[in-house]
Formats: sequence, C-alpha cells, structure tokens
Amino acid sequence: MHDWLDAVKWDAKGVVPAIAQDARTGIVLTLAWMNDEALKRTAASGLAHYWSRSRAKLWKKGEQSGHFQHVREIRLDCDNDAILLVVEQEGGIACHTGRARCFYQRLEGGKWHAVDPVLEDPRNIYGHGG
Amino acid sequence: MHDWLDAVKWDAKGVVPAIAQDARTGIVLTLAWMNDEALKRTAASGLAHYWSRSRAKLWKKGEQSGHFQHVREIRLDCDNDAILLVVEQEGGIACHTGRARCFYQRLEGGKWHAVDPVLEDPRNIYGHGG
Repeated sequence: MHDWLDAVKWDAKGVVPAIAQDARTGIVLTLAWMNDEALKRTAASGLAHYWSRSRAKLWKKGEQSGHFQHVREIRLDCDNDAILLVVEQEGGIACHTGRARCFYQRLEGGKWHAVDPVLEDPRNIYGHGG
Repeated sequence: MHDWLDAVKWDAKGVVPAIAQDARTGIVLTLAWMNDEALKRTAASGLAHYWSRSRAKLWKKGEQSGHFQHVREIRLDCDNDAILLVVEQEGGIACHTGRARCFYQRLEGGKWHAVDPVLEDPRNIYGHGG
C-alpha cells in the first residue's frame, strides 16, 4: 500500500532525521525526527509532523505555537535515510526560543554565539506556562 | 580546552547529524554525521570532516572525489544536538551519484522520483573501481 514509506531506511528506533528548509528564504530552520506515521501524516495533510524522541510522541509542528509548516516538497536523500522538507513557515518563527530558526548559534573564536535575534518572546508564543 | 566541543550533546554513539548547505545557491546538499574529532578537524582545517557510521571511520569530504566542502559557517541548533555547515561545494557536486545534492528524490503521486540531473558520471569522479 505504501511502498514509498517502506523505501525509507528507518533506523533501529524507527526514525530518520528530517530537515526543514524555508521555501522563501532558503534558510535551514530545524532538524527534527520522523517515524513512518509522522511522514505519512505529513504527506497526507501538507503540514509537517514529527516524532518527538524525548516525549515519545507524534507531534504536529505548530500545534501549540500556531507556527505550522506548510509543506511544498518532500525529498529523500541518496541513502534513503534522511528527509528534507521545503516549507512555508507560518509566523516566520520555527524555533521555540522565538527565533526564525533553531540554528542560531555560530562558532566564532572557539565559542558558540547566539547570532540571530529573538523575534517574539516565547511567553507570548506559548502562553503563561512559566 | 574545548568547551565548545563539550557543549555539543553527542548521542549515545558519540555522534550528531550534520547538515551541509551550499553558501551560494542555498540548497541543502547532504546530511552526514559528526563525532567530536570530525567537528574539531572541520573547525581547525576549514574543510568538512564527517564520521562514517557504516565504515566506522573519520572521513574528509572530497578525499576521494576532490569535491571538498570549504566551510564558511558552523552552526549549532537550540538543543545543541544538530550541526549546520554553510559550505562552498568544490566542483558543485556533493552526492556520490554525481548530482549537486543528495536530496534528489522528490515525493510525487505516492512515489519517489529522481528529479535532479546527474552532472558527472560517478565512474569519472571515483575512477574505475567498478
């Protein structure tokens, strides 16, 4: 039924890394993980779904923040063990810190520096959860 | 000595996923894996080094093909467990199949389609190894 899902070489834990890239700006937003159910739902709905390894839970990106990722392309690499999503990032914010992307730390002079601005206070994104 | 290496949250096998993005075109080229030694050598040399999980071996990208990746930026994500390299891709070919990038398969109509052209015959890249 789903040969295209079986073509993916899921690892021993049943997941593969999934990169999200912004369709408009080209910036690499996030690296998350997918299992077969996450990939199936992503393809069916057009909205990025991932597998949270820490919470052991399927997760629709934006379900809490409203920052959904509308999927324009789903790509697979030459080894069939990594996914690339090309997405339109709702709200222009992919990171839970309120930044455009998760890759905001840059190595300079032997240290990691947070070089990208916080666009919105996470307390405003996620409510008053403390 | 290397606090910035210790800041990375290496997984149980001592590796993290590392994305390479083309500095000029913005396309996502590859997803590979790094251990601390690969990241240290990448930072020291300015050339991308990875850890091959299948060969259990440190690997300088381009050592066989000549398609070195000259590193312009090294970034770390918000969870400290994924790396992004922004690179100038020598030869304009990152994939061992002779394509610009490894993510050349796109999901269309329930099937994966190879949508990017082969720019150079792999036999010319890697010699006559058969």
